[in-house]
Amino acid sequence: MIPFELTILGSGSAKPTLKRKASAQMLTYGNNHFLIDCAEGTQLQLSSLKISPMRIGHIFISHLHGDHYFGLIGLINSLHLIGRIESLHIYGPEQLSEIIQLQLNASDTRLRFPLFIHSLQSNGKHCILENDQMKVYSFPVLHRIPTWGFLFNEKTAERNIRTDFIEEFHPNIEAIHAIKSGADFIDKFGGSHHNHEITSQHDARSYAYCTDTAYFEDLIGYINGVKVLYHETTFMANQTERAIATFHSTTFQAAEIALKAGVEKLIIGHFSSRYPTSGPLLDEARTIFENTEAAMDGIKFQL
Amino acid sequence: MIPFELTILGSGSAKPTLKRKASAQMLTYGNNHFLIDCAEGTQLQLSSLKISPMRIGHIFISHLHGDHYFGLIGLINSLHLIGRIESLHIYGPEQLSEIIQLQLNASDTRLRFPLFIHSLQSNGKHCILENDQMKVYSFPVLHRIPTWGFLFNEKTAERNIRTDFIEEFHPNIEAIHAIKSGADFIDKFGGSHHNHEITSQHDARSYAYCTDTAYFEDLIGYINGVKVLYHETTFMANQTERAIATFHSTTFQAAEIALKAGVEKLIIGHFSSRYPTSGPLLDEARTIFENTEAAMDGIKFQL
Repeated sequence: MIPFELTILGSGSAKPTLKRKASAQMLTYGNNHFLIDCAEGTQLQLSSLKISPMRIGHIFISHLHGDHYFGLIGLINSLHLIGRIESLHIYGPEQLSEIIQLQLNASDTRLRFPLFIHSLQSNGKHCILENDQMKVYSFPVLHRIPTWGFLFNEKTAERNIRTDFIEEFHPNIEAIHAIKSGADFIDKFGGSHHNHEITSQHDARSYAYCTDTAYFEDLIGYINGVKVLYHETTFMANQTERAIATFHSTTFQAAEIALKAGVEKLIIGHFSSRYPTSGPLLDEARTIFENTEAAMDGIKFQL
Repeated sequence: MIPFELTILGSGSAKPTLKRKASAQMLTYGNNHFLIDCAEGTQLQLSSLKISPMRIGHIFISHLHGDHYFGLIGLINSLHLIGRIESLHIYGPEQLSEIIQLQLNASDTRLRFPLFIHSLQSNGKHCILENDQMKVYSFPVLHRIPTWGFLFNEKTAERNIRTDFIEEFHPNIEAIHAIKSGADFIDKFGGSHHNHEITSQHDARSYAYCTDTAYFEDLIGYINGVKVLYHETTFMANQTERAIATFHSTTFQAAEIALKAGVEKLIIGHFSSRYPTSGPLLDEARTIFENTEAAMDGIKFQL
């Protein structure tokens, strides 16, 4: 099974601190190396975790608050300096293109690699990237300025043919392709073998990223049934008023979205710097949604 | 004597690395807290050195290559978030204002503190800031895009009256002020005391910051006689061709400027990441100008 891995580069909110950098994540699946948000200092976080920025093909920016994108121009600049020539695709709010171009012009930098900046659409859920392995969607979340969430779906994997069946019946190449695509098999004695008896298949894996957002029930439809959900919990439940005022979420609210959307696992993050550790936030979220984990800078999740 | 102190926040060039951050320095003198350049991650460097960014009153940006200002918008944003209300003054290239405003608008941020952005003038040396303690000048250096150096002059200090003179002649308050301003003193017996016999005065201290720049003899006039000069040495002398092509300087070139301008001490920095340590660069510069020191992230110089 192709590894599908999430690395947390920054799990804090608003102001970066020495303990928690602001939002950034690396998501890798096969040949796909996706960077999700890119706070100030992300390129150094990548260095310290020995992840080459050259591998990143696509960058997804949720919104234009600084703690989600102030590291992007520095990363682009460094990719240029270290000689990148492969295309880079960025998906983000419409104004991002102007912000990047203005700074490239000011430094008289002509990138040696093609840079494509794709504007996100504000209404509903859209497929923004599809290749043979993945399908990526954007959808609006609810924040003080236009903000998007992202959904990363593994394409339904090929069926795997049981080894004992192959050893007994020696299907030819054509038959193997047909079986992998879901066909039944007729053996040379005329015996019929149902596809589900001779193959197995794992569930398609998926990951959704929702930050920054207030409690927003539309998410339930956008991410319904996702395997792993990252949902911000800037605050604990006793700060619900403050969460509402700042368009952020509490532990209870994130857990409730996870429950209602039928996800398998919830990862919480984007913690306010008022919380020295994530333990109390995690305990609180788990009272509603037990399979919850807390993000921490530098840790990996196998999805 | 008022402490006059320089803290190196970043001594590297171009791409920040885990060992050397890109350009930024704190210069403090009395109530003056000046930040010179502000590369990505400067706010975290300040945190790790326990320097409060709230004290910074004035920021000087040499030019719009990213390794000299990509941390500025993040610093401004953090000052806003932690509740700054005091004015902040920024001195930099004309386009800087547009770059900052565009990003503040994109995040719908209305700063709670007055932000003044002053455009530097490209022709010759100009006084850009003066108060009762200091006088600061900008002047052009020679780089691929418009770039400025800065000169920070302590105002000539008051004369200090010798203790034995005070004990013997008990001058009144008016006489003390007059002597400190340079007047002679007539004692009650009619004896005349020359000011220079009864007072002492230290030389006015000064600091100049010149990076990024090619070898540029106009500097000699702009900074003539400065006590401490920070001059970039991106390259060693065997990379002179490359220094010329990229509008940077070698060790020999920086040392020659220091020599010709009659400075007391030279600090070199902005080292290319090809050099794992600064030792060889320092040795080379010292063959021409002996009183040379190498910048390193986190170290302080008493000026």
